Amino acid sequence: MSTLVTGIGELVTNDLSLGSGLLGVRTDAALVVDGGTVAWVGDGSDAPAADDRVDVGGRAVLPGFVDSHSHLVFAGDRAAEFEARMSGEPYDGGGIASTVRATRAASDDELRLRLARLVAELRAQGTTTVEVKSGYGLTVDDEARALRLAAEVTGETTFLGAHVVPPEYAGRTDDYVALVTGPMLAAAAPFARWIDVFCEPASPHAFDGAAARTVLGAGRAAGLDLRVHANQLSAGPGVRLAVELGAASADHCTHLTDADVDALASGSTVATLLPGVEFSTRSPYPDARRLLDAGATVALATDCNPGSCFTSSMPFCIALAVREMGMTPAEAVAAATAGGAAALRRTDVGHLGVGARADLAVLDAPSYRHLAYRPGVPLARALDVGSLT
Amino acid sequence: MSTLVTGIGELVTNDLSLGSGLLGVRTDAALVVDGGTVAWVGDGSDAPAADDRVDVGGRAVLPGFVDSHSHLVFAGDRAAEFEARMSGEPYDGGGIASTVRATRAASDDELRLRLARLVAELRAQGTTTVEVKSGYGLTVDDEARALRLAAEVTGETTFLGAHVVPPEYAGRTDDYVALVTGPMLAAAAPFARWIDVFCEPASPHAFDGAAARTVLGAGRAAGLDLRVHANQLSAGPGVRLAVELGAASADHCTHLTDADVDALASGSTVATLLPGVEFSTRSPYPDARRLLDAGATVALATDCNPGSCFTSSMPFCIALAVREMGMTPAEAVAAATAGGAAALRRTDVGHLGVGARADLAVLDAPSYRHLAYRPGVPLARALDVGSLT
Repeated sequence: MSTLVTGIGELVTNDLSLGSGLLGVRTDAALVVDGGTVAWVGDGSDAPAADDRVDVGGRAVLPGFVDSHSHLVFAGDRAAEFEARMSGEPYDGGGIASTVRATRAASDDELRLRLARLVAELRAQGTTTVEVKSGYGLTVDDEARALRLAAEVTGETTFLGAHVVPPEYAGRTDDYVALVTGPMLAAAAPFARWIDVFCEPASPHAFDGAAARTVLGAGRAAGLDLRVHANQLSAGPGVRLAVELGAASADHCTHLTDADVDALASGSTVATLLPGVEFSTRSPYPDARRLLDAGATVALATDCNPGSCFTSSMPFCIALAVREMGMTPAEAVAAATAGGAAALRRTDVGHLGVGARADLAVLDAPSYRHLAYRPGVPLARALDVGSLT
Repeated sequence: MSTLVTGIGELVTNDLSLGSGLLGVRTDAALVVDGGTVAWVGDGSDAPAADDRVDVGGRAVLPGFVDSHSHLVFAGDRAAEFEARMSGEPYDGGGIASTVRATRAASDDELRLRLARLVAELRAQGTTTVEVKSGYGLTVDDEARALRLAAEVTGETTFLGAHVVPPEYAGRTDDYVALVTGPMLAAAAPFARWIDVFCEPASPHAFDGAAARTVLGAGRAAGLDLRVHANQLSAGPGVRLAVELGAASADHCTHLTDADVDALASGSTVATLLPGVEFSTRSPYPDARRLLDAGATVALATDCNPGSCFTSSMPFCIALAVREMGMTPAEAVAAATAGGAAALRRTDVGHLGVGARADLAVLDAPSYRHLAYRPGVPLARALDVGSLT
């Protein structure tokens, strides 16, 4: 069944053959969805016939947001830790252990319910693709379980056994890395597309460059592709390791040397920025302008998790990117759509060219500019087109 | 008809006789609404019978937000000005003239439709009382019209003919003040509760201390109570004038001297902070901690307007207040509820004691802390209780 979406005041295509500017914008547009993909894009006045018709009343339509970094499989609540941090406690990743305890104790059904609620919350804010990491189980069974549940809601599943060293392995990082790269990886790999590691020598809970290299190498050998938590708390080795190994994305990139920026600009690794984390940990923001000016590909993602950043809102991240990171509204929207797709090495999402997956976000606003112009206002939602169901 | 609201996981009452801490919080609570007011508050296990029943499923319930500063009667769009500002253009209030042009040209019905949409948007985010200013007409007829339309949606209407000097009075501020305090005030007063002035010697478009004093004096003589746009762009005379004249609120308070802080701490004037403006103009934030520590009463409001800040989200302002202004989550929620009520000199809203107006906000979260813990996520909405309709 085909559906004609009409009355699109402004259409962001991210396809330069279909519109103008960085975002491939066209006005007074229409679009036909057929079999779940974009079948036609053009002027509203030229729209072909279709089986069904949705009029969006002059609103802006964008590719659904691609949130390439989240941690949605967990139990527990860390509002009290957040409150303490806002009163001056520093963030070093240590609170992750409390989520690990709660997650291990939760039933499958509780985790499934929480995950479904968060995915619905993301979708209600315009996100149509989400990557989900494990990393709050940190045992063979709990990591495999987290990925099994994540795989029920997305194909973009990431094994993050190397999130932190769990308390029972304190002081025995090498033993824990052996567990992660051995039986845990074997149990997790059937449910995972990606492997990730929190590479952060500045945190007593995370992993140094050598351990990260070991984890990523084992993951690749098991058929997983690579992403890295890199340079969040210090200018460590994570970014350069990610680029050297051809990881799809280096995430955080808060503290970068000139060599890190050069590496990101010359390699194929996307710099994924997570400004909600800096907001919620009261940390300095990464410098997106520096990365863009150097020629790096930049993505924005939420990092939605119960500790360092519990936002699920890509529009909020866009507004922060414009306010705090030197991005233009267009650059921020590109990073939240096409950038996220690049960070997941996906060509079927993040744009609305013919043949793309018909993942549409609609705004209660006339232009994508309103995402930064109207911070905090819930303007975006995923558009359910008849033929998608 | 009475309605029992039950299943309240956490109830913020802002009434220290009903709960604990700054916010008068109680858990596992219930509340009876009768005839549009709060008739009973207590433990869920003690709840009396009522005609109707609403179960909020363990969610947190708060007094609806009181947004004591907005400019919702306007036409036009300034997304392009916002985009230019984010690329380095400074904000000095000059862009207001473009909204004045568009507002004058709009029909009553267009203004009414835009206003209704914005009020609905506020309510969908948990705001149940909103003050609305004129200030984009700047002629006798256009100011009276704006207030007539505002009075259709709220009793908290504010005459702001002294928003900026309109282009046709450029260089003739005295003549414009004579118009504002003469025929414009006479036409506006029947529809207004408050008078306000943009007191800002640092802006070429606004009014100095002497002009502000003239405007406020005339308003008071016409039976209006006072509020002041004070110290937004510089440490000018606005705050001390507001306190001297017993204004209900001095709004913005971005640049304060020690004498300003002392005045606010010792007088009856509320310091209303509008952090969305600093977010959207990339300006330094006001120091709420300094004001609170000195003993001033602090309110938070959106300043929703098409130029300097087009957010309508009180939760966003709460998150900014915690991140940027040194407020605890509890202080920020108090400022967005009880603080706003104080800034409007209202005792019937901003709390949920017995006899209060039954204006309830419900969160898709277990605690008020989530408003800051989950920035950008649309958690809050006004709760429609049967007996309110």
